[in-house]
Amino acid sequence: MRNRKLRNFRIVLQYEGTRFQGWQRQDSTENTIQGKLEAILSKMTGQQIQVDGSGRTDAGVHAYGQVANFHMETKRSAAEIMEYMNQFLPEDIRVIQIKEVAERFHSRLNAVGKTYRYRIWNSGMPTVFERRYVYELPQKLDLDEMRYAAAYLVGKHDFKAFTSNKRSKKSTVRTIDEILIEQQGNEVVLTYSGDGFLYHMVRILTGTLIEVGLGQRRADSMERLLQSGKREDAGMLVPAKGLALMEVRYD
Amino acid sequence: MRNRKLRNFRIVLQYEGTRFQGWQRQDSTENTIQGKLEAILSKMTGQQIQVDGSGRTDAGVHAYGQVANFHMETKRSAAEIMEYMNQFLPEDIRVIQIKEVAERFHSRLNAVGKTYRYRIWNSGMPTVFERRYVYELPQKLDLDEMRYAAAYLVGKHDFKAFTSNKRSKKSTVRTIDEILIEQQGNEVVLTYSGDGFLYHMVRILTGTLIEVGLGQRRADSMERLLQSGKREDAGMLVPAKGLALMEVRYD
Repeated sequence: MRNRKLRNFRIVLQYEGTRFQGWQRQDSTENTIQGKLEAILSKMTGQQIQVDGSGRTDAGVHAYGQVANFHMETKRSAAEIMEYMNQFLPEDIRVIQIKEVAERFHSRLNAVGKTYRYRIWNSGMPTVFERRYVYELPQKLDLDEMRYAAAYLVGKHDFKAFTSNKRSKKSTVRTIDEILIEQQGNEVVLTYSGDGFLYHMVRILTGTLIEVGLGQRRADSMERLLQSGKREDAGMLVPAKGLALMEVRYD
Repeated sequence: MRNRKLRNFRIVLQYEGTRFQGWQRQDSTENTIQGKLEAILSKMTGQQIQVDGSGRTDAGVHAYGQVANFHMETKRSAAEIMEYMNQFLPEDIRVIQIKEVAERFHSRLNAVGKTYRYRIWNSGMPTVFERRYVYELPQKLDLDEMRYAAAYLVGKHDFKAFTSNKRSKKSTVRTIDEILIEQQGNEVVLTYSGDGFLYHMVRILTGTLIEVGLGQRRADSMERLLQSGKREDAGMLVPAKGLALMEVRYD
């Protein structure tokens, strides 16, 4: 019989991924977002706390709105926990929201949608201020062709060709609701919204769309690529630093 | 009689000031922009090279368009020198332009105007991505009052009250051409253009205008403040990290 009362807290996080080896805790010598959060909460409570994220982000990937949750026994208010965390977190991770939620809430299992953004610096060298957040690609991109290709990718498809994970036996079917491709000053910004994304999927989609934009690949070849399901038929894996998880949606 | 042919190069620089103890070379243990540039050029040529900047920037102040020049004996092209510099500079300093100029050109003495920008994050906490470049001030600012106060400061005035340098016997008269005060998303951005700025002048002007925006100081008190010439009558010195040198102008 359980006699501890475990409370469940949901947090929204920002982080600059540059210095970290990604979200997922590995062994104790590695520098990960999950590892940092768990160490601080375990220290705060004296309990072994597990923090579940809505999904892993790779080394170098940034977040404006990652969502995570954790269970703990505590008398502190949500605001006090957030303040404690921000006091001890390094300055490149910040908790921007906290809320006590129902015990059954799970940030990954209950997520119904996510938005990722990929920034391409498309004009010479990025400024020193943007260097950590953009991929440098000065060549001219045909955005109309990229949009035409993207239209094939929107919808419910098997995205097996667009993931680096070969071993998984899980479904590789996902639904992309929208791919926005916009010129914003010196940048070309790709914004992906969907119900979920496979390992490396956004970065391989972006690499493939870039090859279309450069004229190396035809926009109407996307249909064949979705059918082939072969990673080697898709485009390059673009660098992590251009990618950011913007938002995770729940019902 | 001089038998060396010295060439004069003018460079435009970007840097993120966070890690540096400002522009000006100090002793060899200190980390300065000027020191880094001189060390690299001296190594490249085997000569002792002096780099003159358009002005010093303080520790933590950023630059989008600092201008500097240096004389050297070299057979390298301007483009080769820029490439060499960018290869050895740390990633938070970058040469973005280089041009060979007349031997008498001096980046400080020939400058006729400068533009600085000060960024106030005016809505809760800044994102982790902006934290190094903005001053956090969540309180509501009355921008109209700030603009009204700024109008008194535009023009040719003795800005003695707006500098931390007490010892200098040089003139403290300067001309401000324009002070723009704009809401940009979560930020209030102040842009100052003028013929030159005294030590700490932009940061004290900003601190004074903020006090007007908070209702702690009347806009029409600027006239009296310019007349008093007393530092203690002016506002606070706001943090360096919000400040950036945007542009240096020449005839």
